Amino acid sequence: MIEEAKRNRDWLVVSIFVNPPQFNEQKDLLNYPRPLEADEAFCETHGVDLLFTPTVEEMYPQANCSWIEVSSVGKYLCGQHRPGHFRAVATVVMKLFQIVQPNRAYFGEKDAQQLAVVRRMSADLNIPVAVIGVPTVREPDGLAISSRNVHLTGADRAIAPRLHLALQCAAEQIREGQRSPGLIRRAGMAVLEAEPRIEIDYFEIVDPDEMQPLAAVHGSVRIAAAIRIGSVRLIDNILVTVGQPG
Amino acid sequence: MIEEAKRNRDWLVVSIFVNPPQFNEQKDLLNYPRPLEADEAFCETHGVDLLFTPTVEEMYPQANCSWIEVSSVGKYLCGQHRPGHFRAVATVVMKLFQIVQPNRAYFGEKDAQQLAVVRRMSADLNIPVAVIGVPTVREPDGLAISSRNVHLTGADRAIAPRLHLALQCAAEQIREGQRSPGLIRRAGMAVLEAEPRIEIDYFEIVDPDEMQPLAAVHGSVRIAAAIRIGSVRLIDNILVTVGQPG
Repeated sequence: MIEEAKRNRDWLVVSIFVNPPQFNEQKDLLNYPRPLEADEAFCETHGVDLLFTPTVEEMYPQANCSWIEVSSVGKYLCGQHRPGHFRAVATVVMKLFQIVQPNRAYFGEKDAQQLAVVRRMSADLNIPVAVIGVPTVREPDGLAISSRNVHLTGADRAIAPRLHLALQCAAEQIREGQRSPGLIRRAGMAVLEAEPRIEIDYFEIVDPDEMQPLAAVHGSVRIAAAIRIGSVRLIDNILVTVGQPG
Repeated sequence: MIEEAKRNRDWLVVSIFVNPPQFNEQKDLLNYPRPLEADEAFCETHGVDLLFTPTVEEMYPQANCSWIEVSSVGKYLCGQHRPGHFRAVATVVMKLFQIVQPNRAYFGEKDAQQLAVVRRMSADLNIPVAVIGVPTVREPDGLAISSRNVHLTGADRAIAPRLHLALQCAAEQIREGQRSPGLIRRAGMAVLEAEPRIEIDYFEIVDPDEMQPLAAVHGSVRIAAAIRIGSVRLIDNILVTVGQPG
C-alpha cells in the first residue's frame, strides 16, 4: 500500500491504530500484534512522510455515541460472523478521514468486504476521498500476508496456504464453465475439509461491490472465505471475471 | 442564523433541502413548506454568498446504505416520538458537511435536540466543523418562528403561543425554588391541558447536552416540549440555569 501511494507521488500519512470496538473477543484484541518499533523503522525506510499512531484515549476521549452503519455491503460474510465489526470499522475510518483529511486512501484487497464497506460509506456520505484498493501481497506459498500470520505455529503455518488453494480451486471451476455457486463452493470447501485442523467460518461467491451471495455466476464475482486454524482466524478472497452467459 | 454568520464575517453558504428520510409521515413531507423563490430573494437581500439547493436525486443518487446513529442524545423526546428521525438528520448533516466543507455551521436552538445530536456527532467523529447554536427567534406573542407555522389556521395560531407560555411557567417554578422535575412538568403541562385542542407529545426537563430526562434539577437544564394542534406539530424549549444545591 505504501509503494502504491508513493507511486501516486502522494504526501503519505500512515495510520497505525488497533481499534478496540472492531474486535469481538477481548483475547483477540489483547493478542493482536503491535510491533510499533518495527513498523516505525519500516515506514521510515519506505519514505512515509507522517506516521499517525494515536492512543485509544486520543481516538475515544469520551464514550462514543455516534456509529456509522453500512447495511447491505456489511451484512453477510464477516458481517454475519463478527457482529458490530463493520460498524466499528466504518466509524473509525470516518474518524481517521476527518482527522487526516486525505485526498486518497489505500486499503488492502485482502479485506475485500472492509474495502467495499469503506467505498460505500464514502459514496453515500459524499466523503471527498478516493478509496483505492491495493492487490493482496502473498508469501511464496500463496498465504496472504496479514498481521495475524505471526500467531500461526509451525504445523498450522504449513496448512494455512490451503485457504488460497481452495479459492483457486473454486476459481478454476468457474473458468472451466461451472456457473452454480453451490457446486463451486463445494469444490473449494472440499480442499479445506480435507484438513481436519481447519474450521470454515464461511466460503461464499458474492457480488464484488455489494458483497451479497449470488444465485448465479456471471460477470465479475468475488470468492471470499474465512477459516480458523486453532485460535487464528484467516480471511482471503479472489476476484474472477467470466464472459456474460450466451 | 444568517445574521449571526455574517457577524462572524464568514463566506456564507445557505443550504435548503427538505430531507425525505427524516419525515415519519408521507403527508408531512409533502405538505412541508418549500417557498424557494421567497427564500432565494431573502438570501440575496441578506448577503448570502452561495445558496445550495440540491434535489433529492442529487443528494441520494442511489439507495442510501450508510446511516449515522447517535445514541443517548437522540434517544428521548423527538427521538422517541419520531423513530429514525435523528438518524436521518445526522446522516444528511454529515453529507452536507462533506459537500460544503464549512469551518462553522449554524443551527437553531429551537431544535435543541437536533443541535445536541449534531454537536455530539461532530465531536465523536472528529468533524472539523464548529457547530454553533443560534437563539430562537420569536413572534411578538412568544411563538417560536418555524416553517410549520404557516399551516396554523387562525384559531390554532391564536392558541399556539401557549407552548412558550407553558415552558415559561415551568421555568418560573424552577426560579422560585422547585427542584422536582415531576412537579415542574405538572405546572407546565397544566397550561397546555387547559386548552383542549392541544395534544401533548412530551414535556420534559432534560440535561442540555445529553438531552436525557433528569431525576433532579441543578445547574443548567433544558425544558423541552412538543405539542400537536390539529395536524401541526410544534416544538419549543428554554434553557434555565439555577445555582448548585446548598
